[in-house]
Amino acid sequence: MNIKASPLTQKLSAFVALSEIELAVLERLHQRRKSFSVGRDLVHQGQSEQTAYILAAGWVVSYKIQADGSRQIVDFQIPGDFLGLRSVLLHTSDHGIEPIVEIEAAEVLVSDLLQAFAETPRLATAVLWAVSRDEAMVVEHLVGLGRRDADARMAHFLLELGVRLSLVGMGSKEGYACPLTQYHLADALGLSAIHVNRVLRKLREAGLVTFQGGHVTFDDYEGLVALADFDPAYLDQSRPLLP
Amino acid sequence: MNIKASPLTQKLSAFVALSEIELAVLERLHQRRKSFSVGRDLVHQGQSEQTAYILAAGWVVSYKIQADGSRQIVDFQIPGDFLGLRSVLLHTSDHGIEPIVEIEAAEVLVSDLLQAFAETPRLATAVLWAVSRDEAMVVEHLVGLGRRDADARMAHFLLELGVRLSLVGMGSKEGYACPLTQYHLADALGLSAIHVNRVLRKLREAGLVTFQGGHVTFDDYEGLVALADFDPAYLDQSRPLLP
Repeated sequence: MNIKASPLTQKLSAFVALSEIELAVLERLHQRRKSFSVGRDLVHQGQSEQTAYILAAGWVVSYKIQADGSRQIVDFQIPGDFLGLRSVLLHTSDHGIEPIVEIEAAEVLVSDLLQAFAETPRLATAVLWAVSRDEAMVVEHLVGLGRRDADARMAHFLLELGVRLSLVGMGSKEGYACPLTQYHLADALGLSAIHVNRVLRKLREAGLVTFQGGHVTFDDYEGLVALADFDPAYLDQSRPLLP
Repeated sequence: MNIKASPLTQKLSAFVALSEIELAVLERLHQRRKSFSVGRDLVHQGQSEQTAYILAAGWVVSYKIQADGSRQIVDFQIPGDFLGLRSVLLHTSDHGIEPIVEIEAAEVLVSDLLQAFAETPRLATAVLWAVSRDEAMVVEHLVGLGRRDADARMAHFLLELGVRLSLVGMGSKEGYACPLTQYHLADALGLSAIHVNRVLRKLREAGLVTFQGGHVTFDDYEGLVALADFDPAYLDQSRPLLP
């Protein structure tokens, strides 16, 4: 694989063996790059007529504000993920998107996608795969929310992020750099910040995983997988489906 | 709109004004029609190398079996919905799909999709819209699961189904025919069957909605919308985005 390939290219390569033309079309989608600072929403919930982005560097959080004003984190996006693709296809954004660190993202309009799909329909299928994979993650979170206890939920979350990051060369079974705070973890997992702190200490003392100083270290990967009952099949990055 | 248009065609028309060619390609996707009986899985959880389907008539349920053997319903599919599209794009199905009534569904292979997308890239964008809309529904369920009380959750569920069904000409603000049992509702909403029964009686006695004899009747649509805090924007069927 080309060492300079964008994270999106690396990610879609897990689904389809990309041709020279497809690679060129993908790189062209990255032309209109912009930087965004921490804490300024890329997309507002309820906003219409907005743009989608491909995240090239950095982490963002997708969230929904409830009627009671509380914030529920839906997911985090990492390099190679689409931001607001759902929002640009649907008329109104059903969620907000906010950078966690300074990020770089490339602007993509529906017309850019249409043009890219016209040039290479395999790319349309690859994007459909990526969106389906995102949906599989949300389903997994939905099913897990009521069924997993706090320890298993945290373990599952840290393992899922690790597998996602490894696909774009930013993680391994050793661990990964992670800019999330305990408040992010709390809002994503439906726990209090104090509870998050307690769970992380418990997992560390059990010799399974250490999350400290912006780094997740898997101390016992297989042990953590067993605790979380983690089966990464839904992340589907074993081999390309389309040759 | 052509009165004989398939439900999928009716549904995608909400996103894109379909040309003659696109209509022909869509109808061709319906060629390999099959009937399936109640209670026999179309797709097994963990199955690989399977087929996707377009549901042409009837209702199905998508579910996940937990490690403890319990069953969590992820969603119901109605005519015009894809079945197992995620499963055919990912290598392994992350869920099972079972007919609730006798159904008709058309078999679709990845190669059929690739060919259709090559002929008309706008169709690829329309399918991407449909998948994004499915994801928005799962996100809505995820956020609602912990936040809505039982009454609001039931009201939201019955309203969402009504809006989805109206898009394919099977429902209105008056109500719709609905083959779901109280056990389906219980497994979908995370309630016990007894609780479902109590909630439905309460909503009926409040003059909001009646679910009886296989029919949902909205007795006070706006009242139910207010109770559920239901905003159908995420279902995105107000007007086509692509002319």
